[in-house]
Amino acid sequence: MKKIFEPKTIAIVGASSLKGKIGNILMRNLQQNNALKLYPVNIKRPRVMGIKAYPSVTDIKNKVDIAIIAVPAMFVEKIVTECAHCKYPIQNIIIISAGFSEIGEEGKEREEKIIQLANKYKLNIIGPNCLGVVNTHYGLNASFAKHDVPRGSIGLIAQSGALTTALFDLLKEHGLGFSLVATLGNKANVDENDFIEFFASDPETKIIALYLEDITDGKRFAGIINKISRKKPIVIIKAGSSKKARLAIQSHTGAMAGNAEIVQEAVKDNGGIICNNLPDFVGVLKLLNGFKRPLNKDTVFITNAGGPGVIATDLAENQENVSLYTFSEKEKDALKKCLPAESSVENPVDVLGDAMEDRYKNVFRKCAEFKKIGSVCVIVTPQAQTPISRIADEISAANRKYHIPFVPIVIGGEAYRQATSVLNKHGYSSFIFPYQAIRSLSKCIEYVNGIRKSKKVFAKELPVKSSALMEKLEKEQRSVLLYGEACSIGREYKLDVLSAKIVNSEDDVKKISGGFPLVAKVDSPDILHKNAKDGLSLNILNSKELVKEFNRLKKLFKNDQVIIQKQVEQGLELIIGIKKDSVFGHVLLLGLGGVLTEAFNVKCLWLLPASQKEIIEKIKSSPLAKIIRKKKISISRIAKEAEKVGRIVQKHAYIDELDVNPIMMYPDKEPVIVDLKIIVDIKGLSPN
Amino acid sequence: MKKIFEPKTIAIVGASSLKGKIGNILMRNLQQNNALKLYPVNIKRPRVMGIKAYPSVTDIKNKVDIAIIAVPAMFVEKIVTECAHCKYPIQNIIIISAGFSEIGEEGKEREEKIIQLANKYKLNIIGPNCLGVVNTHYGLNASFAKHDVPRGSIGLIAQSGALTTALFDLLKEHGLGFSLVATLGNKANVDENDFIEFFASDPETKIIALYLEDITDGKRFAGIINKISRKKPIVIIKAGSSKKARLAIQSHTGAMAGNAEIVQEAVKDNGGIICNNLPDFVGVLKLLNGFKRPLNKDTVFITNAGGPGVIATDLAENQENVSLYTFSEKEKDALKKCLPAESSVENPVDVLGDAMEDRYKNVFRKCAEFKKIGSVCVIVTPQAQTPISRIADEISAANRKYHIPFVPIVIGGEAYRQATSVLNKHGYSSFIFPYQAIRSLSKCIEYVNGIRKSKKVFAKELPVKSSALMEKLEKEQRSVLLYGEACSIGREYKLDVLSAKIVNSEDDVKKISGGFPLVAKVDSPDILHKNAKDGLSLNILNSKELVKEFNRLKKLFKNDQVIIQKQVEQGLELIIGIKKDSVFGHVLLLGLGGVLTEAFNVKCLWLLPASQKEIIEKIKSSPLAKIIRKKKISISRIAKEAEKVGRIVQKHAYIDELDVNPIMMYPDKEPVIVDLKIIVDIKGLSPN
Repeated sequence: MKKIFEPKTIAIVGASSLKGKIGNILMRNLQQNNALKLYPVNIKRPRVMGIKAYPSVTDIKNKVDIAIIAVPAMFVEKIVTECAHCKYPIQNIIIISAGFSEIGEEGKEREEKIIQLANKYKLNIIGPNCLGVVNTHYGLNASFAKHDVPRGSIGLIAQSGALTTALFDLLKEHGLGFSLVATLGNKANVDENDFIEFFASDPETKIIALYLEDITDGKRFAGIINKISRKKPIVIIKAGSSKKARLAIQSHTGAMAGNAEIVQEAVKDNGGIICNNLPDFVGVLKLLNGFKRPLNKDTVFITNAGGPGVIATDLAENQENVSLYTFSEKEKDALKKCLPAESSVENPVDVLGDAMEDRYKNVFRKCAEFKKIGSVCVIVTPQAQTPISRIADEISAANRKYHIPFVPIVIGGEAYRQATSVLNKHGYSSFIFPYQAIRSLSKCIEYVNGIRKSKKVFAKELPVKSSALMEKLEKEQRSVLLYGEACSIGREYKLDVLSAKIVNSEDDVKKISGGFPLVAKVDSPDILHKNAKDGLSLNILNSKELVKEFNRLKKLFKNDQVIIQKQVEQGLELIIGIKKDSVFGHVLLLGLGGVLTEAFNVKCLWLLPASQKEIIEKIKSSPLAKIIRKKKISISRIAKEAEKVGRIVQKHAYIDELDVNPIMMYPDKEPVIVDLKIIVDIKGLSPN
Repeated sequence: MKKIFEPKTIAIVGASSLKGKIGNILMRNLQQNNALKLYPVNIKRPRVMGIKAYPSVTDIKNKVDIAIIAVPAMFVEKIVTECAHCKYPIQNIIIISAGFSEIGEEGKEREEKIIQLANKYKLNIIGPNCLGVVNTHYGLNASFAKHDVPRGSIGLIAQSGALTTALFDLLKEHGLGFSLVATLGNKANVDENDFIEFFASDPETKIIALYLEDITDGKRFAGIINKISRKKPIVIIKAGSSKKARLAIQSHTGAMAGNAEIVQEAVKDNGGIICNNLPDFVGVLKLLNGFKRPLNKDTVFITNAGGPGVIATDLAENQENVSLYTFSEKEKDALKKCLPAESSVENPVDVLGDAMEDRYKNVFRKCAEFKKIGSVCVIVTPQAQTPISRIADEISAANRKYHIPFVPIVIGGEAYRQATSVLNKHGYSSFIFPYQAIRSLSKCIEYVNGIRKSKKVFAKELPVKSSALMEKLEKEQRSVLLYGEACSIGREYKLDVLSAKIVNSEDDVKKISGGFPLVAKVDSPDILHKNAKDGLSLNILNSKELVKEFNRLKKLFKNDQVIIQKQVEQGLELIIGIKKDSVFGHVLLLGLGGVLTEAFNVKCLWLLPASQKEIIEKIKSSPLAKIIRKKKISISRIAKEAEKVGRIVQKHAYIDELDVNPIMMYPDKEPVIVDLKIIVDIKGLSPN
């Protein structure tokens, strides 16, 4: 991959002298660096832009580090083959050309052929349908972006060429720049994971930023983030929460664990930063670029205006990872000494409307001395005498000098631009609104806290083994387990699944004489939400009622069996579930059970395997904890059950969805699993 | 008030020739308009800035429309008195001077005296501690803001001078301007309500924008918003969610109905627009200024880049009031005709990276023809050939021509500025990020839907009448009603409050022989959260247990009485409560009861009085509806109970807090109120 970003010799297939053509923009961008040896390839012209051109790559008799292909899609396969057959085969290829899998079947076939060639000849193929790559520090612009790429320390990996050029234009205005840029296109055989690993090793890249629409290999992705985010922050914006993935879902867990949420947990749990929108993405990049990292969540606001201070306070109090630092009396006294009598030395510190730069500067120094402050937000509004540029200078100086970030927020138009131009010169950015600054700060604090946690251990997945049960299911073309089948899997893991008696006839039912109140349920591979379909009778008090309910169920569900269970005592109903995500594999879920399950959608998610410790940590920091504590139930007890459920899929990897719903939790006795539903993945079986 | 914003003659007390002085900035700002007759008042100088000065206002022998006072606080009282004693008394006074209630006791006394003078002489006093007022269309800048005030159609009322000047600077950059500006300062005797009413009558003011830190008269405020928002949108950013107000709270309702949330409901229910942060505030102003109003929530996105289209789609799907418009097959065919074959004619419409302005233009025309579209967001990214300015021209033309808004989103730096400068010329603004555009659009759609609803009726509050009960409570210095007392109030309103038997001795208890399972509770003015303090025994199955529990309670709560109730069947536990807000008066709350009450804090709030219809509407659009429907309970049935509870305070206006918690709701039988707690406001009684 080093050759891709630091090539000495480049073949440009489709190079052109015609202005506006992609092959022309590519040539111009590459020619910015005289040290590169370019080989234009053009079947018709002997020279392109004053440089000798070759009819084919095979005519180039020297070593070529990369070939960039920008010809119509139908010719690409041939050219890739030629690359592999050069005197010195060209192993690194960037395919700019569009017209592949993104356009449908025909293009997909074309792409398949390219992938086969890549595998056969061990080629690295970037794209197709991409913008190219950039290495600003090496002087390489192997892209057809018309914009100058600002130089800096952000490594960008993006699955949208258009967004990439928009970001060039946008980030430049904020004083941010790029080290490496890779656009992914259709990811024929090089994907985001390959680039992240390479960017991690690049000394000029301090921050890795990704725009992704899909993730190629979720497990590898999570592992790489886990490994790298400790050294370099990884900031991700993931677009396109796939609706399609939701179509075939049969369980509560399936419905509750959305694709976007799984990505979010996978990134956050491994120390990455995930953003849901562009302003957050840009805001986080601003903070990570140049500023020191926040030490903790305790934040001080310094302002020269009351109103914006109040606004900032409100926002900080409502932001999960940010809180207002409380000054000690001693610290307040110290602040008083460097401020006028009318200044507030509570947080926010009001330096008053007539503050010159020295007043800001003195408060900065004090804040740096108070050891427990995590970060400082500096609000500047343009008032009658406010020396914007000089204050911006002092903010820059404080950021250079001290160990915490001083985040500038300049509310204004001209004033903002004036401050920004000073700050940018010193390598810092600024914010117009407290809102964006605080949101971005919150994400950075979450990152700092996240990478402090112990490293997640990734267990190897065991191979799926066939079993008697699976064979039976395959034979019956059935993907939903009967209750008894599910129970026996549950019991392998010491889950206390409530036993059930199968009753086939009224006579069977009449034999049941004790243990009331009882529950009668239909047990069928076709009926997933028993309650919704009247397949459940609760609280049956005597034999007579039981017979009645049995007959009712039998009438409604002729071909299915009915099972009888004890009515269990009401406790806290939780759902523990598993879902197999197409990208990240098995995911564990814990949520409120019963009627609240999907209504509130309050839940925790873990990529599996998950340790009991991880499970406990996440429950504790979720809204579920409040309810669990109120019910006086032990969180570790819940985590123990969840961990057991999570382990099921280590062996039974063919499980697609699993609902333990509800598991009744009590403050003073062992939990009981009232229902267990398992859906497996059987090839060729289309569920419902 | 017309005289304040359109004065002919102005006295400036504290006028000064010294640069940098407030009295000097005021003079300069006022002198921008030659038509104004200025009377500088300066005790030492015969002339100020070339104009004859007067030692005192009383020396001015002509009629003066307003006096602006900018002298140290200690002299203000004297000057106000003089204003009232002029030959032609000066009735309108703007006090710029600081040093009043904002600085503590001493200042508060000064302010009180000013208020007394205002009342005595019927003066309108703006401020003290304010920035002044502006009327751009009249050419009046009676403020000490150093910035030019951009002219436009926003009427700004702000409780922060510093934020006001920041907004001048900021909004100018977005092509927005002001008609009238009023800064409130300490609101001695003119407040936001007075200004809103006047701004409503000003033909140049199309939008009323407010920054408030507190609201003077909540009921009047809500009424005015209700009346005016149908004609002119009112956009409010309210800062400072008071924590202090939460200290004395004794009920669940009190804890759940926060000050900020009540303001929010009061504004939204009456058709106003409330923003929690500055970017939303500015974004909404951009949309309301110039653009047509969205017709409905069905929004079309047009983009020249896939990535940002995907991002926008994600955001729109997660935004409450925005949804993606679905094109009919016929509409898709029409779109296909004006787009290249590779374009997507789903929503977002992808006009492709090589789109020139004509392609955008054609899609705009089609969208205007499809009658059901509510609004269009136009995403432009700067790609190789993108003619930013010409596209901006087409967006402006579409906004002028068609009946729906075409909201421009230009992702970029230079590109954004280029587009904005074109759009501003035509009277439109643009957004950098889809995020902000969609959030702001959502608020505008909410506004449009809100003002379509029927007008809220404001009932008159009945005077608080003394009663035997109140006298008793006052005598006992007790603010918490006993259960029996609360029940009898509840039953006046036909609430089915579960009866209770008071038991004073073991003998009393032993007499109870039937009706099990039973509940025993302590009934005390000191114990508010019975459950938390072990004052509650549920599910008592027989006499023996009952005696045991009675004794346990008696031991724990020696001085209180114990009551016995039937254990009611489990249903959906809800809380219905009332809280008296210091600004808005009585507020009704509906939420989940039981253990979930404060854990989730899912609730609806209404200012009282509230009709059953209003109650039903809000429940239906809240997350509560999901749970209620799942439990098969009638929303109107719940609304009926809530309305009855709400009526209680019409007569019993002395009630401070009230919790019906829980009320058990069933799908098939009448609701039962299990507990009713009432706390009243007794002067001199410090609760707890």
